[in-house]
Amino acid sequence: MNTPTKPDVLKVLAFDVFGTVVDWHGSIVREVGALGLGVDAVDFATAWRNGYRPAMARVRSGELPWTRIDELHRMILDQVLIDFGIHSLNEAQKHELNLVWHRLSPWPDAVSGLLRLKRKFTIVTLSNGNLGLLADMAKNAGLPWDLILSAEVFRHYKPDPETYLGVGQTFDLPPEQTMLVAAHKDDLEAAHRLGLQTAFIERPTEFGPKHQRTDLNHETWTNYHAADFNQLANQLGA
Amino acid sequence: MNTPTKPDVLKVLAFDVFGTVVDWHGSIVREVGALGLGVDAVDFATAWRNGYRPAMARVRSGELPWTRIDELHRMILDQVLIDFGIHSLNEAQKHELNLVWHRLSPWPDAVSGLLRLKRKFTIVTLSNGNLGLLADMAKNAGLPWDLILSAEVFRHYKPDPETYLGVGQTFDLPPEQTMLVAAHKDDLEAAHRLGLQTAFIERPTEFGPKHQRTDLNHETWTNYHAADFNQLANQLGA
Repeated sequence: MNTPTKPDVLKVLAFDVFGTVVDWHGSIVREVGALGLGVDAVDFATAWRNGYRPAMARVRSGELPWTRIDELHRMILDQVLIDFGIHSLNEAQKHELNLVWHRLSPWPDAVSGLLRLKRKFTIVTLSNGNLGLLADMAKNAGLPWDLILSAEVFRHYKPDPETYLGVGQTFDLPPEQTMLVAAHKDDLEAAHRLGLQTAFIERPTEFGPKHQRTDLNHETWTNYHAADFNQLANQLGA
Repeated sequence: MNTPTKPDVLKVLAFDVFGTVVDWHGSIVREVGALGLGVDAVDFATAWRNGYRPAMARVRSGELPWTRIDELHRMILDQVLIDFGIHSLNEAQKHELNLVWHRLSPWPDAVSGLLRLKRKFTIVTLSNGNLGLLADMAKNAGLPWDLILSAEVFRHYKPDPETYLGVGQTFDLPPEQTMLVAAHKDDLEAAHRLGLQTAFIERPTEFGPKHQRTDLNHETWTNYHAADFNQLANQLGA
């Protein structure tokens, strides 16, 4: 049984983006595969993404000064290219490959679901992606955000509290009138502890067919649990 | 003769909002008039707006810590209500009146012109309005921004350089690949000095029919000069 839901007080839905709205794994596998680098594109995509949390942790701890995801993605990419023994890309090609994160494909339900949810709620991003990345992605994929909020605005990466609480502060609302929508329970747990409502979205193939996610269990502390954005729209009467 | 135009390198159009995209004067006159306060709504709107620059100057000088426009508008409103001898509004009514800035009406050409420009360029705001205000306004008026950039992101108010240069920095572009679109020459001059392209938009009735603006002259240093957003779209081939 989920926490009693409070759709009537809800005003703003804040969406995690990588994995929740867009399929980073499938998009990167396609682009890396098309480059013909002679590597396993699935392993390459996984390695690139695996560098994400450690890189952000270095910013969160203060070891690195504020650094945007674009720059972190590039630092990780340079190491992954070494690890995979790829020496054939020139600087322009590396730069272009790094921009794959700006053109990730949305999950099939994302645009239609967001358009429904936008009729009833203010829909915003709450992503560690930088503003330029998220704006390029939205323009490319047709994501109809009312506002793009980013770690770059708050100068803090999730799960720092400044990010989750920043959503309500932006709109002069208490946390319970905002909701984090995400495919990651640790992200939702951090938001829940700060008083936001939460919606878990099942994305079983976020990490690709080789690494299907198995923990799609309902949790007692989430307010909503949906297979995709259209099911969430149904649950919220949008 | 204007500066030679460079439409081919142009990637991002950044729009001033109050007066350039939306008709603050007409919107406030209508709402204040509807309240039946027994005051001249035109004078009231003018007085409210006249407090804007001095309030921001107090933040820019460091006299006030970082303060959002919502709070500055409220400080000014409280003084204007005293000056006009209005004591009939309770706290909820004052709060609601202050939110008029969140629901300003666009100029008639704004939405159609922006939709055209969005097909060829990335269109963003560059406003001293806060993020929540600009998001509410966009949702209410149907303004199709690719990204809402605000003084709140840069923690600097225009004309501080951090705001104009922040547009290019957000998208990893040099200033000359970005353009400020505004109805105010001082705003455009500040952007021009920093290397941005500039487009002047004529809004002769921004300050109402009693205070028609007369300086709509072409300037040698602006890249574009248009009667409205659709004419700008024509000039830019959008």
